[in-house]
Amino acid sequence: MEVNKIILGEVFAYAFSFKQEDVELFAKATGDYNPIHLDSEYASKTMFKTPIIHGFLGGSIFSKVFGTIWPGEGTIYLKQDLKFLSPMRANHSYLAKFEVTEVFPEKNRALVKTSVFDDDRICIAGQAVIIHPTKL
Amino acid sequence: MEVNKIILGEVFAYAFSFKQEDVELFAKATGDYNPIHLDSEYASKTMFKTPIIHGFLGGSIFSKVFGTIWPGEGTIYLKQDLKFLSPMRANHSYLAKFEVTEVFPEKNRALVKTSVFDDDRICIAGQAVIIHPTKL
Repeated sequence: MEVNKIILGEVFAYAFSFKQEDVELFAKATGDYNPIHLDSEYASKTMFKTPIIHGFLGGSIFSKVFGTIWPGEGTIYLKQDLKFLSPMRANHSYLAKFEVTEVFPEKNRALVKTSVFDDDRICIAGQAVIIHPTKL
Repeated sequence: MEVNKIILGEVFAYAFSFKQEDVELFAKATGDYNPIHLDSEYASKTMFKTPIIHGFLGGSIFSKVFGTIWPGEGTIYLKQDLKFLSPMRANHSYLAKFEVTEVFPEKNRALVKTSVFDDDRICIAGQAVIIHPTKL
């Protein structure tokens, strides 16, 4: 499906989840073997009680959506701010929300508010700056 | 090796690189199969000429260092800003630099300037806020 021009105020939402296998692949890819993500026994002794996923794995949903879905192929990622507000876990459904808060058409550029929600609770807040040569 | 208290002005540097295999694992973990990261033929037709790694894979070095090396285990990651200034590639050596720009000892919290360099060229700029219960 072809995405048309992205406009000011446009909102896009994307449901997603990660499996523990994804967390293990992410640890292998990044070298980030922090046991809070991988070891239930370790996690049980922390404030989190059960393993949480890497914040960068949670935040990677923004990159995936921008680069492959909305606006999709050809997106150039300039900036991403991330506030990790609540822990995220494997095998749990989340909703990523995107809202275009500014568009700079002469630069094919947009400022996008990016969030991850667990129902009403916000897990990641932030904003991104992206370029798309034809859709912005 | 035990890391002592982290103090204002402290600088930590960490050399790293990623293999194309890491990029493929990262794509699998995150679902971000943007061809600019995976397909040489596709990349050759873009401004980048050769595949670039995911910005979040490059940025994950901050998470790895904070969570596993400096300050290490027990770090809680509150915030990370990322500006993707130059593309990063597999099989290439980079240097991550960390500089403590503010410490809030009553909150066990620090503001840390985070950067990735390719020699003198900056690839990722940003800052992080972390908590460590004993080292901050």
